[in-house]
Amino acid sequence: MAEKGLLFVVSAPAGCGKDTILNELFKKTDSAGYAVSATTRSPREGEVNGVHYHFITREEFERKIDEKEVLEYTEYCGNYYGTLRKSVNDLIERGKDAILKIEVEGAMNIRRLFPEACLVFILPPSWEVLEKRLRDRGTESEEKIIERTRQARTEIGYAKNYDYLIVNDKLAVAVDDLLAVLRAEKLRRSRNDALLNGFEEGGDA
Amino acid sequence: MAEKGLLFVVSAPAGCGKDTILNELFKKTDSAGYAVSATTRSPREGEVNGVHYHFITREEFERKIDEKEVLEYTEYCGNYYGTLRKSVNDLIERGKDAILKIEVEGAMNIRRLFPEACLVFILPPSWEVLEKRLRDRGTESEEKIIERTRQARTEIGYAKNYDYLIVNDKLAVAVDDLLAVLRAEKLRRSRNDALLNGFEEGGDA
Repeated sequence: MAEKGLLFVVSAPAGCGKDTILNELFKKTDSAGYAVSATTRSPREGEVNGVHYHFITREEFERKIDEKEVLEYTEYCGNYYGTLRKSVNDLIERGKDAILKIEVEGAMNIRRLFPEACLVFILPPSWEVLEKRLRDRGTESEEKIIERTRQARTEIGYAKNYDYLIVNDKLAVAVDDLLAVLRAEKLRRSRNDALLNGFEEGGDA
Repeated sequence: MAEKGLLFVVSAPAGCGKDTILNELFKKTDSAGYAVSATTRSPREGEVNGVHYHFITREEFERKIDEKEVLEYTEYCGNYYGTLRKSVNDLIERGKDAILKIEVEGAMNIRRLFPEACLVFILPPSWEVLEKRLRDRGTESEEKIIERTRQARTEIGYAKNYDYLIVNDKLAVAVDDLLAVLRAEKLRRSRNDALLNGFEEGGDA
């Protein structure tokens, strides 16, 4: 019912399947769009510039920070990750929900800048499953895996600041959970004062 | 994720289709049940005791009030309408969401008694559509229709105290909206502290 799109933040530790969930989500709805983050890290195999991330250089990133084109950013494992203001505005003004896939510190910055943003944290079913998923990727060294599980522990500590928790046990369930959150948030009374005002003004009954 | 059922309140002015929405909802999910209200009004054609309402006498209703078996009640058009404590508890303790279909004043009482209850208000698409729906029922006198539209105006004035607003324009959309609300509410972080505690305790990564 809200005419402008809403801003959703989706965070999850590496290995929780947030990319897969979002890919499936976008197959099932066109009411939301992906606000592509910018990063200075190298693309992984199969990652496409402008689709998975805007891959830019450190110099370019820092220039955009100076020009206030970066809404929030954080440094993570030695690289910048950030949200370009333009990526968000383009979606919201077309009436689409903008989904930001960002790290926990970035999410907290978005919360401060946009108190009305809706924050969703994706959890693994258990620590065991998370570690197994990281190993099954087969792309990371043992050292990286230990670093990532430690990082996951820190990140899950931020989950208490989020609005919704989704456990990614079965992919299809997690996707439908996220779709329900997107749909329900638009119906919240606090986002629809204009609708009620319309009834008061038009009330000639 | 929450193991106990949640308490949902659904209110709407007469003619907004809340009965039809709830009937369709229960065809699509068995995670929620209807906490049948008690009333002293006479059954309408087709209404079944224990299904649509517990139809009881004034004396019986007042006895239940005295015995604290009535969670909330209100008088509306000369009849008592109320919620039996047992109807709600039976559902919630079986892990089902309890849905109360009650008037606005009853809803406000439930809000005071159960701050964690989730309140949903169903709106008509417009005043014109509401009046047309009341007339199309063909069961009410012109006088009653005027009384009901006036009543609707008062009730919509309470909608600002609800958590969600659903416009019943197309039935299937309204039903899916309500399903999304039920699903999303269970994912709210504020209802899932136990889940996060489990991660902190189990975190040996």
